[in-house]
Amino acid sequence: MTEPPVLALVPDDAIRSEVDVPGVALAMLSPSEPPRGPAARAGFVILDPRAREQFTALLPRLARLEVVQTLTAGIDWLPPLPPGVTVCNASGVHDGPVAEWVVAVILAMAKDLPAYVGHQRAGRWDTSGNTAFARGLGSGDLAEQTVLIVGHGSIGRALAQRLAPFGSRVLGIARHPRAGVSGPESLPALLPESDVVVLLAPATAETRHLVDAPFLSRMRPGALLVNAARGTLVDTGALLEALRTGRVRAALDATDPEPLPRHHPLWSAPGVLITPHVAGSTTHWRARAYRLAGQQLRRYAAGQPLVNVRRHGY
Amino acid sequence: MTEPPVLALVPDDAIRSEVDVPGVALAMLSPSEPPRGPAARAGFVILDPRAREQFTALLPRLARLEVVQTLTAGIDWLPPLPPGVTVCNASGVHDGPVAEWVVAVILAMAKDLPAYVGHQRAGRWDTSGNTAFARGLGSGDLAEQTVLIVGHGSIGRALAQRLAPFGSRVLGIARHPRAGVSGPESLPALLPESDVVVLLAPATAETRHLVDAPFLSRMRPGALLVNAARGTLVDTGALLEALRTGRVRAALDATDPEPLPRHHPLWSAPGVLITPHVAGSTTHWRARAYRLAGQQLRRYAAGQPLVNVRRHGY
Repeated sequence: MTEPPVLALVPDDAIRSEVDVPGVALAMLSPSEPPRGPAARAGFVILDPRAREQFTALLPRLARLEVVQTLTAGIDWLPPLPPGVTVCNASGVHDGPVAEWVVAVILAMAKDLPAYVGHQRAGRWDTSGNTAFARGLGSGDLAEQTVLIVGHGSIGRALAQRLAPFGSRVLGIARHPRAGVSGPESLPALLPESDVVVLLAPATAETRHLVDAPFLSRMRPGALLVNAARGTLVDTGALLEALRTGRVRAALDATDPEPLPRHHPLWSAPGVLITPHVAGSTTHWRARAYRLAGQQLRRYAAGQPLVNVRRHGY
Repeated sequence: MTEPPVLALVPDDAIRSEVDVPGVALAMLSPSEPPRGPAARAGFVILDPRAREQFTALLPRLARLEVVQTLTAGIDWLPPLPPGVTVCNASGVHDGPVAEWVVAVILAMAKDLPAYVGHQRAGRWDTSGNTAFARGLGSGDLAEQTVLIVGHGSIGRALAQRLAPFGSRVLGIARHPRAGVSGPESLPALLPESDVVVLLAPATAETRHLVDAPFLSRMRPGALLVNAARGTLVDTGALLEALRTGRVRAALDATDPEPLPRHHPLWSAPGVLITPHVAGSTTHWRARAYRLAGQQLRRYAAGQPLVNVRRHGY
């Protein structure tokens, strides 16, 4: 008898060509999986947040589970896992798309594009838009702006690269300071120097409500807060207050709560642009994430060390 | 008796510190200037389109006029000038702001920001926005896009520099081909290769209605036309047709007619983003333009050669 193949579970919209690995049998993550179905033998699971429910339901039956490979950089949405399970993320896959989204919203706010979309809807040719900046609310030119990256990791590097030719001054804060990147203790001193503050830090106990009333009060008048990380980094009540008084502006891809309910006051607060957690979700992103997952599956099947390990199972 | 000072006319909102030149008396451009008032002695006039009417009214009385220095790169809005008048433009002053606006709208359209502004207004958390790109309408990632610059001069170079770290492929067309920039005869071959076509060419007899039905029909399905130049480069009727069928998308800072009247069908055409000719008008732009004008005035007063000469008066 030959050794049964390694079994991997994949979401139902997996790009099969990317995870088609010799010696590995694939099964779909399915909520209707029978108790002794093939999924129960899976050692490797590929997951994104949309498959969370199915996976959580199946989890008690996954006795041979060794590796969870997420298609996302964040892993905070995973259910509690049994000890012994290694978690790998898709760090790096989103760097380009998220960095692009951040530059997109910084420029959109600098050029008043959300206001012009409103004028367009009303059929109004109104050239007074950019005078918001003449009144000291930020600057129309990125060349004159200082951008502070809070949580300066691989996405931060991709962002800094893309901002460089605009001539912006880029400052960074990270848990582990290094050349050109300061430690968290520098935050209060750097906030008043920054026209744009970009949140890229992970959601942890330390970063919860990092952006609170004192943080916002240290930001420059009219400065732009960009959240491309997680909604819980921001105290929504404090942000709403700072938006209402015109103290700051914001571009948010992540909110708390999320999804933002229909009648939540954040939707209509002044000076805010909201996208529904899509910064990392571009056409090409899934192919890249599945390519990474396929490479990991190949390593797993060959008994080689995995990359992007965020939690060791042993 | 001392030589009377050189007299320069400036718009009524001139930044005086930038044009305060020893030996030069300044006078405001004013429609109520008396026939033998000081303006009639002016040799040097600083102009932007907002001062066009006053200048045109004064022109018959400006017997000593030698130099018109515009605050803009374009000079097509100037009234007919007497022979002997040298025209200098503000080429270079707008390069950064216009390049920033072009990157802003390319990214805004790639990230579906105008659609999300609409969703935000309706309080709708709708993550399906980016699927427009999954249906083949361009790409959510700039890294995968080819950008064709039509009229690749100093603004084009500023744009190409800013696009470089995004990994976009940048193609260029100019009247005078050079390394990496093709001649106008390459346009039909390059259009079908491009996801974004950026118009930066001047308004001339040759560029009038450059973008017509055949041009649009050679563009990729769902490709983005960006007009950061002049409205007359585009046949508005042909563009409207291509927008209505979803053949192309567009981001326009210049339209024909301009200003666009309230009920013009372009306002509500699908897949279009319109800003009211503000791409070059950022907070810092006017200071830079007046700095250039002041340097020119200094050269003029000292009898030195002028720069940015677009039409020689002799």
